[in-house]
Amino acid sequence: MENDASLQQFLDRFAAIDGRKVLVHGGGRTATDLATRMGIETTMVEGRRVTDENMLSIVTMVYGGLVNKRVVAQLQARGINALGLTGADMDVIRSHRRPVKTVDYGFVGDVERANGDMLARLIADGVTPVMAPLTHDGKGQLLNTNADTIAGETAKALARHFDVTLMYCFEHAGVLRDGHDETSVIEQLNAESFKTLTDEGVISGGMIPKIQNSLEAVEAGVSRVIITAADAIDGKHGTIIS
Amino acid sequence: MENDASLQQFLDRFAAIDGRKVLVHGGGRTATDLATRMGIETTMVEGRRVTDENMLSIVTMVYGGLVNKRVVAQLQARGINALGLTGADMDVIRSHRRPVKTVDYGFVGDVERANGDMLARLIADGVTPVMAPLTHDGKGQLLNTNADTIAGETAKALARHFDVTLMYCFEHAGVLRDGHDETSVIEQLNAESFKTLTDEGVISGGMIPKIQNSLEAVEAGVSRVIITAADAIDGKHGTIIS
Repeated sequence: MENDASLQQFLDRFAAIDGRKVLVHGGGRTATDLATRMGIETTMVEGRRVTDENMLSIVTMVYGGLVNKRVVAQLQARGINALGLTGADMDVIRSHRRPVKTVDYGFVGDVERANGDMLARLIADGVTPVMAPLTHDGKGQLLNTNADTIAGETAKALARHFDVTLMYCFEHAGVLRDGHDETSVIEQLNAESFKTLTDEGVISGGMIPKIQNSLEAVEAGVSRVIITAADAIDGKHGTIIS
Repeated sequence: MENDASLQQFLDRFAAIDGRKVLVHGGGRTATDLATRMGIETTMVEGRRVTDENMLSIVTMVYGGLVNKRVVAQLQARGINALGLTGADMDVIRSHRRPVKTVDYGFVGDVERANGDMLARLIADGVTPVMAPLTHDGKGQLLNTNADTIAGETAKALARHFDVTLMYCFEHAGVLRDGHDETSVIEQLNAESFKTLTDEGVISGGMIPKIQNSLEAVEAGVSRVIITAADAIDGKHGTIIS
């Protein structure tokens, strides 16, 4: 979503999805670019951004402002009544600062709760929430929060109100049997087949926590999770986890 | 509002205002600072920011992200259910790009309409909108828009739903008889006394359009406009225009 042409295509596809919907976005590349431009170094530990005070300002600007408001304006142009939200807005996602174990991630939040009632009311009113990966602690502190986590927690909180499909978009067509073959998508996964495929070494690395989170979401009431490419969000492609 | 200590004080005072409320903020100094840091020059013509594509990104980051989300999180910490909005969010303020006459201001918007019904519904639900000075044209384009204009148009649109007091905060205690004497506040103004004081030269310069806009808001149904200092927003200080 950080390249204008592919963003436009993605938003066309998103607008075409039937039914009520929520969009959760990132913006990490743009944040890193802005940091570089401002002479601020980006430090990542295990794929997570270390967020000191300067970096928090940058992600607040990029996620909460630049990316979020562009997406909102573009969805409005497509007849979607979008509303940009961070977790602080209407207190929709509350978190606490991640405790320091071996790494101090700084102003990074672990989600405590997503306010499904508030979001459901907006959605019932015809609003499409567009959520930036930022939350707050209720004491005035904004916290940088992983977008996949926001999506998962939001889906779980909405599952008490709606039949929810959670879709994770990434760079592959789905969970692949063979990482070098985009046609080798595993079409269905459940807890049992996940265990088998992990034991066999077919599923490994970063896919394991992604699928674990998906299974957890299904446990918590989400009807299905789809892992798919950003250009195939019609619900008919990718890996369906149920 | 761009200095942390005075922001905190202002938000304490804002939180203490009885009744339903909306906050409209700016962020010009922070935008200029960020532009400087990024090596981008700021051009102002008659007090208005010329907004090319780079500058639009900067104000979208600063107004829509940094300033807006900090204020929202800080109000949440004070028990105020704040929601940050640009004009694009829920289509609350629609504008068109300002036509080029002698100056091309770039991506600057002149307001067409504020969606009072949508804002009134949020406010009736207990939400406090926090509005950034950005609007959209409905075709996907964000536009930089004067904060005083946003405040005026919002107040007028809400006057069909509520008894509205519009308060403009600035660096003086009110409209002054003597610009060097902060105790010389003119306590009341209406169309007639405004004309007299302008003819006499007591009111001049930048105060004239400010008061003209205020009188227009009153014409359009706003109950009263108060021009006051940011540290005196209790409704008992400043110049009351009715």
